[in-house]
Amino acid sequence: MKNRLIWEQILSDDLNPFYDAAPRAHSTGLISREELALANRNSGIFLEALQHDITPAGMHYLLVHFDVPNIRKEDWRLEVSGLVGNPLALTLDDIKALPAVTMPVTLECAGNGRTAMTPRTCSMPWFFEAVGTAEWTGTPLSHVLDHAGLAEDAVEIAFFGADRGFDRGIEHDYGRSLTPDKAMSDEVLLCYEMNGMPLLPQHGFPLRLIVPGWYGMASVKWLDRIEVLDHAFQGHQQVGTYRYRQDSGDEGRPVDVIRVRSLMAPPGIPDWYTRRRMVDAGAVEMTGRAWSGGGVAVERVEFAVDGVWQDARLEPRGGDYAWTKWTCIWQAEPGEHVLACRATDANGDVQPLEQVWDNSGFGNNIVQQVSVTVR
Amino acid sequence: MKNRLIWEQILSDDLNPFYDAAPRAHSTGLISREELALANRNSGIFLEALQHDITPAGMHYLLVHFDVPNIRKEDWRLEVSGLVGNPLALTLDDIKALPAVTMPVTLECAGNGRTAMTPRTCSMPWFFEAVGTAEWTGTPLSHVLDHAGLAEDAVEIAFFGADRGFDRGIEHDYGRSLTPDKAMSDEVLLCYEMNGMPLLPQHGFPLRLIVPGWYGMASVKWLDRIEVLDHAFQGHQQVGTYRYRQDSGDEGRPVDVIRVRSLMAPPGIPDWYTRRRMVDAGAVEMTGRAWSGGGVAVERVEFAVDGVWQDARLEPRGGDYAWTKWTCIWQAEPGEHVLACRATDANGDVQPLEQVWDNSGFGNNIVQQVSVTVR
Repeated sequence: MKNRLIWEQILSDDLNPFYDAAPRAHSTGLISREELALANRNSGIFLEALQHDITPAGMHYLLVHFDVPNIRKEDWRLEVSGLVGNPLALTLDDIKALPAVTMPVTLECAGNGRTAMTPRTCSMPWFFEAVGTAEWTGTPLSHVLDHAGLAEDAVEIAFFGADRGFDRGIEHDYGRSLTPDKAMSDEVLLCYEMNGMPLLPQHGFPLRLIVPGWYGMASVKWLDRIEVLDHAFQGHQQVGTYRYRQDSGDEGRPVDVIRVRSLMAPPGIPDWYTRRRMVDAGAVEMTGRAWSGGGVAVERVEFAVDGVWQDARLEPRGGDYAWTKWTCIWQAEPGEHVLACRATDANGDVQPLEQVWDNSGFGNNIVQQVSVTVR
Repeated sequence: MKNRLIWEQILSDDLNPFYDAAPRAHSTGLISREELALANRNSGIFLEALQHDITPAGMHYLLVHFDVPNIRKEDWRLEVSGLVGNPLALTLDDIKALPAVTMPVTLECAGNGRTAMTPRTCSMPWFFEAVGTAEWTGTPLSHVLDHAGLAEDAVEIAFFGADRGFDRGIEHDYGRSLTPDKAMSDEVLLCYEMNGMPLLPQHGFPLRLIVPGWYGMASVKWLDRIEVLDHAFQGHQQVGTYRYRQDSGDEGRPVDVIRVRSLMAPPGIPDWYTRRRMVDAGAVEMTGRAWSGGGVAVERVEFAVDGVWQDARLEPRGGDYAWTKWTCIWQAEPGEHVLACRATDANGDVQPLEQVWDNSGFGNNIVQQVSVTVR
């Protein structure tokens, strides 16, 4: 029996990631080893953790584009430069001395649900689990920007992390931008604590941006540089990716506000390999969470058994940017069933039953379905 | 463009996990959706975390067979029953009142490296990342067993978790066993803290077994029942899996002590999708960790560039069951290179360069290779 060395299997023969900027091919087939390596590396939430208001440390979803930087707090500074009256180099203690806010925020990866797309862009192959809600503590970004003094001709503000690498042949520090209006809004935070503890290295220690209500790509981790620009930021993570596109030639439009979505904690007990569920007949209390972006409330969650929908009960949410708990009693009868849940927000937006196409697999909020056996 | 619902893609048409106990087929091809779902769910260490003596919370590898139980400390008891003079039902406070020990322990999943096998058994498709080292705090199991009073005819001691599910058609609480001699040895702990904090839910809250020097399957999480038996334990996780086998008909022998292995923190910066590395020419300080099982020390680590080996420098390990840090200066020259590392332990066991076959992909300790571009 011939067993090849693993690295021979991992590397694609026809792809040089450093010099070839051509779009990667889509896949209609099974999962590639590169996708599997990303799935091994990045983490989704355990769906059973949807029972908790606040996702425990290490169960929150995590997407790391490059490597987790190894930052010593003593060596770290937050630099604020560009079109400001007063350039800054702040220590973590400087930032902690500013007024602090603690806020529960639901973060979701823009690529959540990508694996449902056919064909599928070659990236992190999320199923439904790229979400989590933490208590974030920090200071409003506006305090730091006020201190620096934004110039009147500021057009965008760029935020850079200490993480550096390549994507599609382009070497860059991870960087994203906001307009001055958005950056100055109350809810945008510079955070140094998660769930009452200093940030874990993988969640952005010592400081990260949190942009509540937007997909996670905006919440730059390992933030160490803010630059105020007189033009629109042209960084790869702003204009080269995180755009809704119908095809790869399309200029697209930016991915920003989280789309309405709900998930359920799967009932019963699982099979180890397939994750298929076995449920005992009788009354089952179903629970899950629902959320939308931009501070918009979820107004309705429906729960379905084999395509028959009923309204679930909603509990008050913990804040404008936190998810909403829903519950529903299901009278489970023996046999094979498919469960589903569907949320509607205050804008009237509702999760689709049919997959909506996006070339990069962004913003997919199709309803979750869970297949169960009742005994 | 037709986009199917995700659950239609996930479920295998020809597999009923609850009623079909037949061995699952091996795969020689690309990754199945079931494997991908397991990789999304379970987490490896970030290889860059190999720079740390102690793996930060949430970066330690994690394999959860079924669901993470939602246990309230107040409701939980550790029951000790079977062939004992004094059956027990202990609270967490009872266990915390016993003498406490804190110990750094390197845990590794028995299936680490499974993805290198061809054909590959259908299970969690680990590359190299199923490892981590934490500071575990608890009390020696022997204190509790002494208190319960083992009968002289005790043959094995079984340990059960609160997690329940199916594997190959068999419904069971996760359960493993030890011989009385092993169970009474000093290093086997009942742990309630990890890195100085209460166990996280996903790492076994409120109590787990830690069996240092053995692969992770022995360190039962969410432990709530210990049963002393007059016979060898026949639970599925003891006799149905976690055995070294040449083929599926083979009775096999138990998986227990961790085999010698080393890993490196990959140098330079990565490409997002392929994880291939770009390194600047010049002196590069390579670092990584090496370990073996059963308390055996690592005596040598070699580092190779394009198949030319040199000895790395070893630092003292933090304890009999903790990994050893190694470092090596690499004079990186422009071009394409393959890096590798290889450990030898005090028993003279050395990591193989060629894959050793195991039917379930257990105990694979082939050398890691990292492909890099130097500029």
